[in-house]
Amino acid sequence: MRAVDIIIKKRDKGVLTREEIDFFVEGFTRGDIPDYQAAAFAMAVMLNGMNAEETTYLTLAMARSGEVLDLTGVVDFVVDKHSTGGVGDKTTLVVEPAVATCGLPVGKMSGRGLGFTGGTLDKLESIPGYRTDLSTEEFIQQLKEIGLVLTGQSKDLSPADGKLYALRDVTGTVPSIPLIASSVMSKKIAGGAHAIVLDVKVGLGAFMETLESARELSRLMVDIGRLSGRKVVALLSDMNQPLGQAVGNALELKEAIDTLHGGGPEDFREHCLVVASHMLKVGGKAASLEEARQMVERVIAEGKAWEKFRQLVAAQGGDVSYVDHPEKLPAAPVVYPVLAQHSGYLAQVHARMVGETAVVLGAGRSKKEDPIDHGVGIIVHVKVGDRVEKGQPLFTVHARTEADARMAEARLLDALTWSEHSVSPLPLFYGVIE
Amino acid sequence: MRAVDIIIKKRDKGVLTREEIDFFVEGFTRGDIPDYQAAAFAMAVMLNGMNAEETTYLTLAMARSGEVLDLTGVVDFVVDKHSTGGVGDKTTLVVEPAVATCGLPVGKMSGRGLGFTGGTLDKLESIPGYRTDLSTEEFIQQLKEIGLVLTGQSKDLSPADGKLYALRDVTGTVPSIPLIASSVMSKKIAGGAHAIVLDVKVGLGAFMETLESARELSRLMVDIGRLSGRKVVALLSDMNQPLGQAVGNALELKEAIDTLHGGGPEDFREHCLVVASHMLKVGGKAASLEEARQMVERVIAEGKAWEKFRQLVAAQGGDVSYVDHPEKLPAAPVVYPVLAQHSGYLAQVHARMVGETAVVLGAGRSKKEDPIDHGVGIIVHVKVGDRVEKGQPLFTVHARTEADARMAEARLLDALTWSEHSVSPLPLFYGVIE
Repeated sequence: MRAVDIIIKKRDKGVLTREEIDFFVEGFTRGDIPDYQAAAFAMAVMLNGMNAEETTYLTLAMARSGEVLDLTGVVDFVVDKHSTGGVGDKTTLVVEPAVATCGLPVGKMSGRGLGFTGGTLDKLESIPGYRTDLSTEEFIQQLKEIGLVLTGQSKDLSPADGKLYALRDVTGTVPSIPLIASSVMSKKIAGGAHAIVLDVKVGLGAFMETLESARELSRLMVDIGRLSGRKVVALLSDMNQPLGQAVGNALELKEAIDTLHGGGPEDFREHCLVVASHMLKVGGKAASLEEARQMVERVIAEGKAWEKFRQLVAAQGGDVSYVDHPEKLPAAPVVYPVLAQHSGYLAQVHARMVGETAVVLGAGRSKKEDPIDHGVGIIVHVKVGDRVEKGQPLFTVHARTEADARMAEARLLDALTWSEHSVSPLPLFYGVIE
Repeated sequence: MRAVDIIIKKRDKGVLTREEIDFFVEGFTRGDIPDYQAAAFAMAVMLNGMNAEETTYLTLAMARSGEVLDLTGVVDFVVDKHSTGGVGDKTTLVVEPAVATCGLPVGKMSGRGLGFTGGTLDKLESIPGYRTDLSTEEFIQQLKEIGLVLTGQSKDLSPADGKLYALRDVTGTVPSIPLIASSVMSKKIAGGAHAIVLDVKVGLGAFMETLESARELSRLMVDIGRLSGRKVVALLSDMNQPLGQAVGNALELKEAIDTLHGGGPEDFREHCLVVASHMLKVGGKAASLEEARQMVERVIAEGKAWEKFRQLVAAQGGDVSYVDHPEKLPAAPVVYPVLAQHSGYLAQVHARMVGETAVVLGAGRSKKEDPIDHGVGIIVHVKVGDRVEKGQPLFTVHARTEADARMAEARLLDALTWSEHSVSPLPLFYGVIE
């Protein structure tokens, strides 16, 4: 078998066999197949696609390229959750403690924010001392003890995906649906998941901008699950406008803490309830979504989900006083309100533009190595469909300087589209694919 | 400007600007743009194509990537000739001396054979002492003195093409028509050509197997010529069966010598007359193809073309006694006739299969580094359309061993398709594009 023949086969729209995909991924992981052949292969896949079987073989080959976590004997059934990334998406911080409290252990490896989207690790690192670099032994030990882990992804997990992703980033092959699907699923499978709830974001602030592409990605990931013996449920959720109100690391952590205390913005709370319910259902802890929802509402109302979150922070070395007293969390020196300059209905609160503004304020990274500022960010007071009166607060900017705040103001006002007539609010979800 | 954005533009079927193509080729030549980005770019071009303007920019950027031969003051007008490669194609050995004798100086840099096709340099190296590594100064000096040079391609000529070609070979991006066209044309333009006659081979023994693809390639190269201010004429010629009778280095050289003496196989002689006529016409040495043909027939009949060839061999250090007495040229120890096992009409003499058999005998290379045997090869006695009687010689195999000869016999018999009914002969040419 030769790498070039596999590239040629895909170039000519052929369907690759399991043996061919294994050969390519194994050779690429070992370094026998050079980057330039992998780049040509990625472009051929980008332009000619792969079917569900091929994508499953690619997923499994990448999952097998490194350590595969075996949680047998630690937990009965591993349910993982993955969001494709959005603006203001702090769902994990609420859903995972709630679900763990309901008796479904969750050991989750999260990523960092890149581009206009935030990452769970960055939000958690607002808490002094919180460790995101647990070893596999620590991971398993903590999962046994408290049933909840939120840490960073081990470098040994799906190294072929890491290597291919770095190459895709510089060869224009990031937006390939089969390559995105196999990247997500290979990490989840290597992480030991038996079932996965996918939160597939769609809209102006998501990688999938159209419902059609989000559906295609969701279907493919559900198919990979079926073909590899894992249960996968994909929720299509709105990312045209930011989720909840807070965008920025400590600000989002505070909003998650509010929500764990039973408060929080209505859309965010509802989003968390739905995601958590699906996790409990696929995890066999509830017979129906309704039953699951009641369980989640109860553990939040009784303060048990919050207690689990405190346990998590303590277990991973975080200073619990910071989550008990969120006013201690990193905060920006300048708090600057952005007021409505006229009245009207809001037709658009452009999620990506809000996310990019947060990055420019210092909340995110343009490059992997960039440092981030945990205190800065934006509170978004408005939603699409809202009637806004002149002078009403639209955003609160948390910035390092006045100049930064004014720069953010200009960008944020640009992110809004106004209408003279009433506008329907956006749905939270567009459907479920399973 | 970033390389990845240029790749993305082509991935999305965009039309690249001159600036973008220059940036990419210059960066790639310098090594600033790594092989993996060039590989992804080549695959995007392979699958999404390039229009004539883009291909011209690519051609000119590659031509400019190294030394560009300036023959001003040496010759008035430089006409080059290029064959896309075939089996038994020794045309250069006859056409160039004939054309030079008619007053059109020819300084040609040729390539070596690769795969099932032969190369002019390998054929000339059958002559002991013949140098194919002239320096630029030697090239110019000889062109001034005798008006004829046949040497190897300088490594300084179009280095970007050399680098890209090596990458295409291992990334499945060889058969892209814009990449083939720009590769050919960049070398011709860097070689200083003002006009180019292209011999585009089509059929079972050519890289372009269909008339449609050969026409597309021809039209594109003619367009590149027009857009870059060079006159280009493309002849579409048959390569379903071998050209002439001889396949193998010294055997082909002998056939070329016969032809320069006024003999040689009819199809090969006719092919040379047509190619030479087009060169004289575009070079302004003849007003019409008819006039040009008469000039070529005359210089061959009067022995002047042969004399020019002798001059060439002597000028490049070759031992002239070997071309004066071709029986001195390298010869294989085993000469083995392949006879017809039954009677019938020949419907196919598969050029590629004959070429591949010659390679297996030792006449060609599978890899660039392979040594070759100048003596071995095949004489093809039959053409498509011939009526053959049982026992009549079909081929004469020139081999190193009896075992090789018998292996060749089996392969050559497989290369023939027979018919009970009469079959039309194949045309020599399918058209001219200019």
